[in-house]
Amino acid sequence: MLAKKYASVAGQSSVIREIFEYGKKRASIVGADNVYDFSIGNPSVPAPASVNENAIRIMQTEDSCKVHGYPSAVGYDDTREAIADNLNKRFGTNYHKNNIFMTTGAAAAITFCFRALADSGVGDEIMVCAPYFPEYKCFIEGAGVKATEIQADIKDFQINFNELERKLNEHTRAIIINSPNNPTGVVYSKETLEKLASILEEASNRYGRPIYIISDEPYREIVFAGKTAPYVPHFYKNTLVCYSYSKSLSLPGERVGYIAFTDDIEDADIMLGTIGAVARELGYVGVPSLFQMVVRDCVSDTSDISVYETNKNIIYKALTDMGYSCVEPDGTFYIFPQCLEPDAEAFCKKAQQYDLLLVPSDSFSCTGHFRLSYCVPTERVERALPLFEKLIKDYRS
Amino acid sequence: MLAKKYASVAGQSSVIREIFEYGKKRASIVGADNVYDFSIGNPSVPAPASVNENAIRIMQTEDSCKVHGYPSAVGYDDTREAIADNLNKRFGTNYHKNNIFMTTGAAAAITFCFRALADSGVGDEIMVCAPYFPEYKCFIEGAGVKATEIQADIKDFQINFNELERKLNEHTRAIIINSPNNPTGVVYSKETLEKLASILEEASNRYGRPIYIISDEPYREIVFAGKTAPYVPHFYKNTLVCYSYSKSLSLPGERVGYIAFTDDIEDADIMLGTIGAVARELGYVGVPSLFQMVVRDCVSDTSDISVYETNKNIIYKALTDMGYSCVEPDGTFYIFPQCLEPDAEAFCKKAQQYDLLLVPSDSFSCTGHFRLSYCVPTERVERALPLFEKLIKDYRS
Repeated sequence: MLAKKYASVAGQSSVIREIFEYGKKRASIVGADNVYDFSIGNPSVPAPASVNENAIRIMQTEDSCKVHGYPSAVGYDDTREAIADNLNKRFGTNYHKNNIFMTTGAAAAITFCFRALADSGVGDEIMVCAPYFPEYKCFIEGAGVKATEIQADIKDFQINFNELERKLNEHTRAIIINSPNNPTGVVYSKETLEKLASILEEASNRYGRPIYIISDEPYREIVFAGKTAPYVPHFYKNTLVCYSYSKSLSLPGERVGYIAFTDDIEDADIMLGTIGAVARELGYVGVPSLFQMVVRDCVSDTSDISVYETNKNIIYKALTDMGYSCVEPDGTFYIFPQCLEPDAEAFCKKAQQYDLLLVPSDSFSCTGHFRLSYCVPTERVERALPLFEKLIKDYRS
Repeated sequence: MLAKKYASVAGQSSVIREIFEYGKKRASIVGADNVYDFSIGNPSVPAPASVNENAIRIMQTEDSCKVHGYPSAVGYDDTREAIADNLNKRFGTNYHKNNIFMTTGAAAAITFCFRALADSGVGDEIMVCAPYFPEYKCFIEGAGVKATEIQADIKDFQINFNELERKLNEHTRAIIINSPNNPTGVVYSKETLEKLASILEEASNRYGRPIYIISDEPYREIVFAGKTAPYVPHFYKNTLVCYSYSKSLSLPGERVGYIAFTDDIEDADIMLGTIGAVARELGYVGVPSLFQMVVRDCVSDTSDISVYETNKNIIYKALTDMGYSCVEPDGTFYIFPQCLEPDAEAFCKKAQQYDLLLVPSDSFSCTGHFRLSYCVPTERVERALPLFEKLIKDYRS
């Protein structure tokens, strides 16, 4: 007798969650040390010391009613100014506080953007590029909007532009991109972003209304070999940047992130208010107050994310040496190799026999690959390598 | 070119917010000490010392990746157990952890309940009892559900049962009640709850499906004269309790609350999963991790809420002595007197001439009254009294 839409999927857990639960059960049998859980994207490095230091200082020195009081719906002015200044310094942009809407992480940010840009039940579409984070579809369809999938380009996991051009139409309101990418670890190149911008500009002109980019970038700072990810708003003005401090400050539990847009974006004058109207209707009152202040004071800091690069180097070299085929990640803490048989679920089941817990690519709307999350201690990565060796030998025997 | 539903109300601020902004502007002219802002329901007493003590201890002694890591969507097991135990001790209930779904405050909790209980776009209705918190309507209509208003019973601000019985129908899925009540301060009596239960039971039988009570009770602990508010689930098994630590622990900015239901509730087996499906679709990932742990450790504590009773006593006596007419509040930090003219907005505008900032009752779907929030220092209440005296003299001259 509950709402059909939700009761029909009550308690349905994601494949990733199921693997995680299996891992816990298996650990109770063979010992936690002998199960290699590469399924979950939970940061394995602590927050920088400045996070707890600032949190403690704020609680010890500032008025409790202010520290724990209601922030305004858009977020604290000084936090938003600190974020705008930091982005301006790094990317040469001109953000000010009213270009920033604080959100409880990137999930809320992209949910707000989907609903702010596309109307429910009228055929509006938002594009997603496979492989993609499975929640995208849940958030888009939950908003009464069609999620239009662009198939993966498995050669390099940049954008499949043939598909994109074929599927763009007068109902397309936005495309969500995620670079550095979960699950592939790939960073979209300058060339990819230039081409994307040019196609979207042309289509926006053709259909007489802007097609926005929603740039979901919680992994922005986790890029390897001293590189940085090209900043999407440099390529396309109608971009909404969605960010979270979950990965860069290792604070996924504290739920702090934001949406940023420049004054050049179409409908700039009502963008903040429109996002606010979405947030209000969905019962979001504001972003946790203490950690908004902490983010303000730690805006230039990051966790020691070098371990992710160390792990990537070890695992990429070892897997390719063994004979696995994969595109080298540019960032994040994921790698997305090809399975050793076409059926990714069957492959991951077989890997489970070696106590390697991997996520089949079907969860990301792509066949024949697996996601390996290496946000684990390096020692765990190293101890798992002989098992990957055994697994490939098993397939070749 | 943004979504019509939200762009059409972009930047629309609530009456309460407008009064608050006016107050800030006015304070810059006449000085903050000379503006009496009774518009906002923001706790004026600090969190108990145990809140910051526990937060600091947890950060100093526990692993950063755990303290700031992803909690599961339903919340931490030990937090939910602590809440269940605390409720069981106080109310003789039999809650266990799987009767508790952690939420980012009561706003998220009631939003989840509305969507879990009523389907969108099929004529489902949820009842609200005037006067009521204006966001109820926003959340219900945002879910594609009809908000059916029950007019106020201005005699005592208990439930208007004539209206209720007249408006109950086969589309009614739930009724939301709020006791202790914002804006009236009234606590629903045992008799009110017994009668409500009996009417709803009969209607549930008549229509062949349960009509749930959503009991929004963030003010549960703020009750005067040593009384306690009758606990709704004792009267009606199909009750979803929505709670927030915003008022009892003075933590409105930290966004921690929960939904609780007993095993006896209809559809108990899929209730947690259905609520979880709503939360997932709306982009809610989980409740802030550090403050979930703090709530676990402070579950029996409250702020020193005695100031609210002191303020109520002063203001109720003074206003009635002066000749204002009002129902005496049983709890909360609100009082809801009659205006001195039928038009509440005009009355509140006139009060502004005396620098008294009050909220007209139309915001709460009720005419001819005003809400006065006395969550301010007692000294402010006392200094405002001569202005209320002048205001009534103005009307009588």
